[in-house]
Amino acid sequence: MARYSLGLDFGTNSVRALLVDVANGKETATAVDGYRRGTQGVILSHDPNLARQHPADYIDGTERVIRKVLSQARRAKKGFRPEQIVGIGVDTTGSTPLPVDHRGIPLAFDRRFARDPAALAWLWKDHTAVAEAAEITSLAREIHPEYLAKCGGTYSSEWYFSKVLHCLRAAPQVFDAAHLWVEIADWIPATLTGTQAPDQLKVGVCAAGHKAMYNDLWGGYPEAEFLGRLDPKLAGLRSRLPARAETVDSAAGGLTADWSRRTGLPAGVPVAVGAFDAHLGAIGAGVAPGILVKIIGTSTCDITVAPVDRPLADVPGLCGIVPGSVLPGFYGLEAGQSAVGDIFNWFVNYVQPGGKKAGSHEALSAQAAKVRPGASGLLALDWNNGNRTILVDQRLTGLLLGQTLYTTPAEIYRALIEATAFGALTIINRFEEYGVAIREVVNCGGIAEKSPLVMQIYADVIGRPMKISRSSQTCALGAAVAGAVAAGRDAGGHADFDAAQKAMTGLKPKDYRPDPQAHRIYGDIYALYRKLHDGFGPPQGVCGNVMKDLLALRAHSRRDVI
Amino acid sequence: MARYSLGLDFGTNSVRALLVDVANGKETATAVDGYRRGTQGVILSHDPNLARQHPADYIDGTERVIRKVLSQARRAKKGFRPEQIVGIGVDTTGSTPLPVDHRGIPLAFDRRFARDPAALAWLWKDHTAVAEAAEITSLAREIHPEYLAKCGGTYSSEWYFSKVLHCLRAAPQVFDAAHLWVEIADWIPATLTGTQAPDQLKVGVCAAGHKAMYNDLWGGYPEAEFLGRLDPKLAGLRSRLPARAETVDSAAGGLTADWSRRTGLPAGVPVAVGAFDAHLGAIGAGVAPGILVKIIGTSTCDITVAPVDRPLADVPGLCGIVPGSVLPGFYGLEAGQSAVGDIFNWFVNYVQPGGKKAGSHEALSAQAAKVRPGASGLLALDWNNGNRTILVDQRLTGLLLGQTLYTTPAEIYRALIEATAFGALTIINRFEEYGVAIREVVNCGGIAEKSPLVMQIYADVIGRPMKISRSSQTCALGAAVAGAVAAGRDAGGHADFDAAQKAMTGLKPKDYRPDPQAHRIYGDIYALYRKLHDGFGPPQGVCGNVMKDLLALRAHSRRDVI
Repeated sequence: MARYSLGLDFGTNSVRALLVDVANGKETATAVDGYRRGTQGVILSHDPNLARQHPADYIDGTERVIRKVLSQARRAKKGFRPEQIVGIGVDTTGSTPLPVDHRGIPLAFDRRFARDPAALAWLWKDHTAVAEAAEITSLAREIHPEYLAKCGGTYSSEWYFSKVLHCLRAAPQVFDAAHLWVEIADWIPATLTGTQAPDQLKVGVCAAGHKAMYNDLWGGYPEAEFLGRLDPKLAGLRSRLPARAETVDSAAGGLTADWSRRTGLPAGVPVAVGAFDAHLGAIGAGVAPGILVKIIGTSTCDITVAPVDRPLADVPGLCGIVPGSVLPGFYGLEAGQSAVGDIFNWFVNYVQPGGKKAGSHEALSAQAAKVRPGASGLLALDWNNGNRTILVDQRLTGLLLGQTLYTTPAEIYRALIEATAFGALTIINRFEEYGVAIREVVNCGGIAEKSPLVMQIYADVIGRPMKISRSSQTCALGAAVAGAVAAGRDAGGHADFDAAQKAMTGLKPKDYRPDPQAHRIYGDIYALYRKLHDGFGPPQGVCGNVMKDLLALRAHSRRDVI
Repeated sequence: MARYSLGLDFGTNSVRALLVDVANGKETATAVDGYRRGTQGVILSHDPNLARQHPADYIDGTERVIRKVLSQARRAKKGFRPEQIVGIGVDTTGSTPLPVDHRGIPLAFDRRFARDPAALAWLWKDHTAVAEAAEITSLAREIHPEYLAKCGGTYSSEWYFSKVLHCLRAAPQVFDAAHLWVEIADWIPATLTGTQAPDQLKVGVCAAGHKAMYNDLWGGYPEAEFLGRLDPKLAGLRSRLPARAETVDSAAGGLTADWSRRTGLPAGVPVAVGAFDAHLGAIGAGVAPGILVKIIGTSTCDITVAPVDRPLADVPGLCGIVPGSVLPGFYGLEAGQSAVGDIFNWFVNYVQPGGKKAGSHEALSAQAAKVRPGASGLLALDWNNGNRTILVDQRLTGLLLGQTLYTTPAEIYRALIEATAFGALTIINRFEEYGVAIREVVNCGGIAEKSPLVMQIYADVIGRPMKISRSSQTCALGAAVAGAVAAGRDAGGHADFDAAQKAMTGLKPKDYRPDPQAHRIYGDIYALYRKLHDGFGPPQGVCGNVMKDLLALRAHSRRDVI
């Protein structure tokens, strides 16, 4: 009898369910359910930095999407029974913290806060806490630089403590009413298993380690004294946070009878501790030491792992270095590019070269494929949305050079693709400079699956084969893998991630191999890219002021208008 | 009774005639006649560097265009008689040398060379002589650096001796049959006045000084020994060149009876010594000490004058510094930008932002006019076609930086305009650094007349009022001014250029004044422009290799294909 694991993938606009055969990774059924509140699930305001989510969307969405996927499974697989499901895994966006009361119930469900956006979940892309992020970075730099060394040197406005501190300052009524702030990656599994009360709550090391400066090296979350310097009330919150965080092989608990009734799943099925989408996505793509998983979308998330039993330097410029955040027993190493697909989309949608038809991704790709490496004379920097790794600076901007009077849109389009490839290579080089070898690259996401041009350029620039994840739902698949491991072998799941990944994940047959001649040419161009990268990127670069000065002038000019 | 002067302006594709009232500059009649041979007058071959012209086009075109303009004048002005025309002036493209026999007859009219492109006029944009230009530059740098100091430090493939030497090497049959090589600026007035025989030929100092290293400082053309080192036969040619060159106030002679019969003009009317279009254009726009004339088209020609009786340094990076080449008694100083309108045309025609309608010059200008200085955060270099002044390097390329994910085509369009303004300011600053004050700027050409946006940005960036020439045919008008001066006051013309310019040239009522706030902002941006200019432009700049290395890779990559 086949056994299944269910992956639940909570995205920005919808939740996806994926039912996977634990023996071979076959994706038996899938369903998606869009959030109903706000704008496709995102609650906005007059402040363009604000982005929130109502936890009711997670509850309702979970119920609906599980019903859908089960009915889909019954149609797809004759004789399918929900009892064949042995485990459940959950991945979510993050950092998306949610204020809850002393029972673990979101304040958003409390009538007093029904209209207070501060009581909602603070979505990953909420940027209201820029000032608090700067304050936290500054204090950590002064008294606890080790906190920053594990997260790229700068604490982000998108992260847990920035948001909590901003709420403390901007909406104290919510902060004061909150017993705890819980990442939805933790709150959803806790809710499904009835363990959301603070004394039972299990938190995952993925969210805690990457977004809340949690590390066993300094005893978990940042020390109370540090948080107290930001605000004494934060020290109080610290005392209510769990003492330790768990890896995704452990279960948050078993599915409650109530959730069994609501969804049709058997009660007691183990639900794995939650983690972020990209991290479980890396697992679903087969991440392992020496393998870099690139999740390529509007931006990229680049994830690899390194054994915890060997020394590892603090790799500068990485977004995060957290033991156990991806696979138990390994450092989870996270890097990324602030824009990839978004740069191509900018060129197609904003510049609209050649008009709508001639300027489509398809048409430009077809022409760009005919341009040989080096033949355009163009070189670009991939910084239209800043640089996440290795410069960790959102205030950098794009650059294109080499234009003549005959430069075509397809040549520019190709140069933009090449720029993102050079950015990707810079990340890989940084890993290797610090002893983390990258033997192969597994790509996932729409661009990886749909653009042979991008993948071939990546292979030629990076000089390694570009492989493509077999699943196009690696995040949900990774969640299902975690569900199978949380279930354990005896219950029909897997003993560990190694076994589960071997059985459940894989690659597409087609991969992209570097052309040696193209790689040689790109080597020469990459040297020029690095010259521009190092000249314009760091403040001490020879042109390190140019982009910043222009942004300052821009801010000044726009202020004049208002 | 009104007196007229006739300006004949020989362009790349056509000849224009302009009949001007010498008392007030009123343009009474004008006519254009397109060349009939080749592609709009330009004879091409499989070699993309080759561009020639048949001298018959000049002869036939002159005859037709004069008949047209006279008939036009009769219609426009009741009682008009050709006898009211007191002088003729001629401007042409250049350097456009033409091989002629011992009577001054073009070899192209000799049956033996009827099919030999080397016997045609070598049009200014013919680039077949790149190797010879490098050879001449190299030899001059070694033994006569003063030759180069007057022409921007590099002898161009577009210029007289490069072309002659290339013919000597590539088509010796033509070189050997040629008694002399004559610029068409000299050959056309000589032909109209029957003075084309070498012993009667007068050559203008404009062509000789700017393109053939002629300077009274070293006794005229380059010394025979120098030319002999390039090839002994060039030393022979040197001995047949006129001993001295003339300024445009002197007459080449009087119109022949034959040309009188062919055109209807009175025989004997004085024809001024010829000069290049931009130089007579500057005169037509009112050039004087302290006034820079910018002839803005696909590229620009920037011309000013400085008194010869005061010391003048060799201003580095200028295209030419030649006594008497514009106005008698003044140094003619020539600078320029390799592309201005061509950069805007590239963006509109090649990149085609927003499709054909949204991406027209008109639509982009309307939107770009709403973007405040500094508000786009963009900065560009105006080098899509290299940099003529002050870097004198055709192998530089364009650069755009500051792009975000929201940058619009109108913002880019404005940044490209601003880049050409920064390039224009760099030229003006160079003049002033070497003691040539530029008090005001007079602009001419289609862009100056039609684009208030460009003119306002130029005023704001350059910090000086932008004035517009009253005439939209400044080259032909300048030729008419020269004709009036060659005629002299007693014959109904003018005593000198000062009097003639005062009477015949002028400005449009509308000028563009700098906005102080915009000028301040552009001052900050210009500092960043100079940082990029000095970083990417000169070989010793911190990024001085980047564009060249990319071009080398491009050449390599394209060679691979062939």
